[in-house]
Amino acid sequence: MQSYNITKRTLMGPGPSDVHPRILSALSKPTIGHLDPQFITMMDEIKSMLQYAFQTKNSLTMAVSAPGSAGMETCFVNLIEPGDKVVVCINGVFGNRMKENVERYGGECIVINDTWGEVVNPQKVEDTLKQHSDAKILAFVHAETSTGAQSDAKTLCEIARKYDCLTIVDAVTSLAGSPLKLDEWGIDAIYSGTQKCLSCVPGLSPISLSDKAVECIKNRKTKVVSWFLDLSLVMAYWGDGNANASAPRSYHHTAPINALYGLHEALVLLKEEGLENAWKRHWENHLLLKNQLEEMGMEFVVKEGDRLPQLNSVWIPQGKDDGAIRKRLLNEYNIEIGAGLADFAGKVWRIGLMGYASHPTNVLLVTSALKNM
Amino acid sequence: MQSYNITKRTLMGPGPSDVHPRILSALSKPTIGHLDPQFITMMDEIKSMLQYAFQTKNSLTMAVSAPGSAGMETCFVNLIEPGDKVVVCINGVFGNRMKENVERYGGECIVINDTWGEVVNPQKVEDTLKQHSDAKILAFVHAETSTGAQSDAKTLCEIARKYDCLTIVDAVTSLAGSPLKLDEWGIDAIYSGTQKCLSCVPGLSPISLSDKAVECIKNRKTKVVSWFLDLSLVMAYWGDGNANASAPRSYHHTAPINALYGLHEALVLLKEEGLENAWKRHWENHLLLKNQLEEMGMEFVVKEGDRLPQLNSVWIPQGKDDGAIRKRLLNEYNIEIGAGLADFAGKVWRIGLMGYASHPTNVLLVTSALKNM
Repeated sequence: MQSYNITKRTLMGPGPSDVHPRILSALSKPTIGHLDPQFITMMDEIKSMLQYAFQTKNSLTMAVSAPGSAGMETCFVNLIEPGDKVVVCINGVFGNRMKENVERYGGECIVINDTWGEVVNPQKVEDTLKQHSDAKILAFVHAETSTGAQSDAKTLCEIARKYDCLTIVDAVTSLAGSPLKLDEWGIDAIYSGTQKCLSCVPGLSPISLSDKAVECIKNRKTKVVSWFLDLSLVMAYWGDGNANASAPRSYHHTAPINALYGLHEALVLLKEEGLENAWKRHWENHLLLKNQLEEMGMEFVVKEGDRLPQLNSVWIPQGKDDGAIRKRLLNEYNIEIGAGLADFAGKVWRIGLMGYASHPTNVLLVTSALKNM
Repeated sequence: MQSYNITKRTLMGPGPSDVHPRILSALSKPTIGHLDPQFITMMDEIKSMLQYAFQTKNSLTMAVSAPGSAGMETCFVNLIEPGDKVVVCINGVFGNRMKENVERYGGECIVINDTWGEVVNPQKVEDTLKQHSDAKILAFVHAETSTGAQSDAKTLCEIARKYDCLTIVDAVTSLAGSPLKLDEWGIDAIYSGTQKCLSCVPGLSPISLSDKAVECIKNRKTKVVSWFLDLSLVMAYWGDGNANASAPRSYHHTAPINALYGLHEALVLLKEEGLENAWKRHWENHLLLKNQLEEMGMEFVVKEGDRLPQLNSVWIPQGKDDGAIRKRLLNEYNIEIGAGLADFAGKVWRIGLMGYASHPTNVLLVTSALKNM
């Protein structure tokens, strides 16, 4: 067996997206111990920059030591106790995964279905919460990576508050790519991933929980089912989230040190650019791509106004061979675009313009390659 | 906020251990997609090299996308159903964590306690299994990182088989550092970490399950509580473990691509050296360290014959200030050694000689530094 040589790709699928060279370089810094004072300082800086990225003052803001799916589980496993009623909005693959979480942790799941490619319907949410006034949590996906639809998180959270519901929001694809204001919108628990608009490698899940959510965890009558994801234990390692870097940290698990070097650098890059500028850049490159695709006669899956700028789903034109074209893009041009998932398999392409990959050069590259096929 | 500059350390604690430069360099290769054919081929190579490292033919051999604690949870959450009786041997911190796992997943936990610093007592295991003939699983730690004791996994597995018990074995610190023969010893489920004797970065947990364990998972009456760690889903992504690289893989979660580049390179290094040679090197450097420490009048916590070569626990000599000395080692010489955990806090130092860090140079370095203090 030999060292593995990688042919570089341009990643324009649903994530991972292209990783910024400064982040790749940060990954290979020398590993240090997970209780080294240098590392504790770095964790505090990561927390503070994640608070900026999420636009929150939440003390409990950190990165789960595993991919986005584990961030999802962290929110659900800590907030749900057996028998809790949870309203889950499903308008794509990731809403379904939320339902799996609720059921496996013994919650009672009330499902609101919306058509794939459409946003979560606020009226249906209001009607459901009115009917189920004992619901404890409303869960929905802000940016549905399987369809490219962006739901109105602000409005949905307002409705949830009106019915005294906590909110769990999937922001895996939205963080740093489109407007997301945790405190202003009143989100209680949010999780994201590093491999989308943060341009970092996959493997970590930034999360943030409001004081109300933390209170709910503190008042649990049962132990959290997962030891690894139990926030009452993880918090003792990440600290209380306040600025006191010298507070003692208890060993919980060994953090993925080098991956966190990468996340730190990704967040420094975000601060250098500025969050609003990053949102603007994603939007402008989306418009550029949209114009090019429409000139080529392609149609978006999601209606105008509900689209994610960072994940563009288009119907595969009639007569075009999905698998063959994606294979040619990969083999001839080293470009990766995303296939459709589940109901959308064979029908939809998902073209990502996320983080470092959200650049006019990539728009030109993918559209001119597609024109040849 | 600025890019974070790291002062390099020599890692001689309980892990993470020093990472080989070739592995650090592999981490910064360009990220590719988790369904890219290149990546699928690399996953297959990792599986095959992990089979070598574990000395097994098990099809279900892979790396969990999270640290060792999640590897532990993967074994327990998949094999335990509510009400199952599990015998857990506790002779240090990590046995306790096993107990937490069993209880959180609704198992009935029968505990066998051994004194910290001693190995798991086979006679007690035999007596307990005789008494609890309905026990489904025997769980123990092969290499107790909190004490430096190495239990006789071969004998313990023999006893378990006699009483028709599955075995779950913690090999976080033993893999690649001391003899471990999964198939020959008849271990059913094993988990390890990458940041110990594999000299890789923390964040992944190699696991392997026997056909008997897989059968047990297939016959479950209840769903696995964790969606993220549900092996019936994860297997569909990692493939069936056989050599068919072209079998279709289903998307489950986004794998930590770059961390897996690191693990691949770590395993290539292990194959280059040869597993037996790696075991021998750990042993020889342990003897070197032992001689030096004993010359300095230090005493081992674990009795001769039961010691882990890669993790050397010694009593802190009377009159020596634990915190002050570890701080001086770190600040003056950039050497990290491990503090005692829980009952051993303030009483014990844990000196690691793991993987790349198991080198005569490091033995000289740490002992000559300690002589000055």
